[in-house]
Amino acid sequence: MNIVLLSGGSGKRLWPLSNHVRSKQFIKIFRKADGSYESMLQRMYRQILQADPGVSVTIAAPKEQVSVIHNQIGDGVPLCLEPCRRDTFPAVVLASAFLHDQQGVSAEDAVVFCPVDPYVEPEYFLTLKELGNLAAIGDESLVLLGIEPDYPSEKYGYIIPEGSGERVGVRMFKEKPGRKEAEGYIRQGALWNGGAFAFRLGYGLKKAQERIGFSDYETLSRKYGELEKTSFDYAVVEKEKSIQVVRFRGYWKDLGTWNTLTETMSEYVMGDAVLSSRCQNVHVVNSLDIPVLCMGLKNAVVAAGPDGILVSDKEESSYMKPYVEELDKQVRYAEKSWGSYHVLDAGVGSLTVKVTLNAGRRMNYHSHERRDEVWIVLSGKGAAVVDGAKQIVYTGDIVKLPAGCKHTIVAETTLQVIEIQLGEEISIQDKKKFNF
Amino acid sequence: MNIVLLSGGSGKRLWPLSNHVRSKQFIKIFRKADGSYESMLQRMYRQILQADPGVSVTIAAPKEQVSVIHNQIGDGVPLCLEPCRRDTFPAVVLASAFLHDQQGVSAEDAVVFCPVDPYVEPEYFLTLKELGNLAAIGDESLVLLGIEPDYPSEKYGYIIPEGSGERVGVRMFKEKPGRKEAEGYIRQGALWNGGAFAFRLGYGLKKAQERIGFSDYETLSRKYGELEKTSFDYAVVEKEKSIQVVRFRGYWKDLGTWNTLTETMSEYVMGDAVLSSRCQNVHVVNSLDIPVLCMGLKNAVVAAGPDGILVSDKEESSYMKPYVEELDKQVRYAEKSWGSYHVLDAGVGSLTVKVTLNAGRRMNYHSHERRDEVWIVLSGKGAAVVDGAKQIVYTGDIVKLPAGCKHTIVAETTLQVIEIQLGEEISIQDKKKFNF
Repeated sequence: MNIVLLSGGSGKRLWPLSNHVRSKQFIKIFRKADGSYESMLQRMYRQILQADPGVSVTIAAPKEQVSVIHNQIGDGVPLCLEPCRRDTFPAVVLASAFLHDQQGVSAEDAVVFCPVDPYVEPEYFLTLKELGNLAAIGDESLVLLGIEPDYPSEKYGYIIPEGSGERVGVRMFKEKPGRKEAEGYIRQGALWNGGAFAFRLGYGLKKAQERIGFSDYETLSRKYGELEKTSFDYAVVEKEKSIQVVRFRGYWKDLGTWNTLTETMSEYVMGDAVLSSRCQNVHVVNSLDIPVLCMGLKNAVVAAGPDGILVSDKEESSYMKPYVEELDKQVRYAEKSWGSYHVLDAGVGSLTVKVTLNAGRRMNYHSHERRDEVWIVLSGKGAAVVDGAKQIVYTGDIVKLPAGCKHTIVAETTLQVIEIQLGEEISIQDKKKFNF
Repeated sequence: MNIVLLSGGSGKRLWPLSNHVRSKQFIKIFRKADGSYESMLQRMYRQILQADPGVSVTIAAPKEQVSVIHNQIGDGVPLCLEPCRRDTFPAVVLASAFLHDQQGVSAEDAVVFCPVDPYVEPEYFLTLKELGNLAAIGDESLVLLGIEPDYPSEKYGYIIPEGSGERVGVRMFKEKPGRKEAEGYIRQGALWNGGAFAFRLGYGLKKAQERIGFSDYETLSRKYGELEKTSFDYAVVEKEKSIQVVRFRGYWKDLGTWNTLTETMSEYVMGDAVLSSRCQNVHVVNSLDIPVLCMGLKNAVVAAGPDGILVSDKEESSYMKPYVEELDKQVRYAEKSWGSYHVLDAGVGSLTVKVTLNAGRRMNYHSHERRDEVWIVLSGKGAAVVDGAKQIVYTGDIVKLPAGCKHTIVAETTLQVIEIQLGEEISIQDKKKFNF
């Protein structure tokens, strides 16, 4: 079976642990049996392989996510990279073309698309498999996964089935109706669209052809930035007459907000935190190295990370997006292909950063025009290269990097380095990359 | 008039902005007319001088507070330094002996003692002056300041006056009664003890002699660590028969908890924070350089600083002391005589600290046995001295400090330095000081 995991999302609703460069699916928040933590992506990928070790998984993701995906699940999974963010219709047709043109999947083969962010149990993957089987053998063009609705939410699509069977035709599909309309659909027995669907690959290619005039991977990728931002639900599902739905009755939770995310946490506290005995239904996720103390709070979530601190009533956490947009956009922590960086201090004319390079990795060979830098190695062993000259470095070594010099550092073991940037104009744009 | 400001207090109730080395009276939280902020100490000292420019002020404080007191109000005020913390009876008699033996105040002169932490308006200082005048001319041994009680609090002393006059004798004094008892006292017209009192200096010396057998400053200071920990209220006020009370009807607020402290703030937010429109009665004090976002909270206080993050229901903030004692005791920010230090990162075998030296100041000349250090100058100009060799340093300069070397740095202008400490055993105990 072919599964495409759709890894999009801006993650403003899970600020400060997610932001415009670090999406929610990469936050390591789910405790595994061995006590370690995994992210939504890691959990989903692990569950897919456990349910069907023979499955072919492809991940459709914006190109900025390459590093973090490799860090989290290795580099053995094909990635269909979106050159920029264009919503789900472009992402789905690009992935269809990728499978067909790059991976040699036949137009007759069924493909299951599945978002990376629901929290589900193993039974979910049996239903995904069924979606694929029905797409392969059935008469309908499209097979959806339907969830029993909890309340008339305005953020889901509504599937109105032909009757109450487990696998039935779809009479109508309505993307994100208003509350009153949603109540009406629910009275008619509607299901939420769970975001997972299946079709024979040729269907995706045909839709691309119909709507944008071409369906080959190379052209789609090249013209991706010009494609209209529209969702697959609006562009395809609402218009399609030939749809089947499989009713899914198992555990499914959309992890879009702190409120729903914390419901899946096995403990009230992640990280360094103390709750007073009069706290009720309080969750703390603290990735800073200073403690959080909560006194007498009720129904609240506290999330603290290098980008900021959120303190929210749980229900109110759904409304945080516009407020997050108001905040300072400086990203103080980022995962890179080679490790991570964490801004420790941002002053006038200086930036102090802790850089962690994973063993065997190196940063790009690069230079800056308008700032000097200094590296001080805190721990580990590696090699610094400055203007072609290589120098082995250990704990305590200091490397001076005057403006204009080309430099990189290669980690032999895990390497922790303090990087101090000094200049009147410190900017991430001030970087030239070179071959190494 | 002689006033002794009593600057004690551990400040656990105002964690994380106060801690065992940084007391609440030094937090700069009160906005002045010019937009800058002042601390309780600064406000109180300014108010005392404004009310009576001819007053003689002495500050009684634990010796660890010397640097921060000098930083905040200069070094022109005599300090009576307590060698360790021993509660208020030892502090009051030590200060009495200090005034008599070191400052030449006569045993017949009146002295007013006043805690540093109530939030008061100028009228309060007129009443303090009256306390002093009554102590000087009256027949009673002790003059107290009485506050109209708001509720039967268990944390104050209760003064039961002889009648309802403005200046009357005291029938009885009871320190920290239980709630029921307090209710009874209030029905009898009791007043709270506001913590300010006055006596003729000889009275304080006599009480020292009676209770501990000596009253000279030199002996008191030398044996301070052996003195019993007891409060002036238990040791003296409860036993004294000859007391007068002056009723104070003006504005007075005890700033012991976040709940009362935030009531004196002129704005809801200090530092980088955003409150959603559905927040009600929420105060944020954020001294970190990352933003705080509050969504839909009610009656809450958020306080964030280098030592940690507090999120508390306002009323519950009175109960935080035992929880603060549970927390990691690492102090990540401290004010020093020469400036401040802020721990940016604490790793295994390394500590990264941002050191700010005020212009004209220098740290002690010192060495470490078990760690190497490196300084990188972020901004400013100064001179580093390593094993006697002086070197002028500017932005970008690097100074290596191998274990064992004697070193200091002197700031010509305000100097910001990143100090990286490297060693298997990094401890504040590993420090030898030398003359410079």
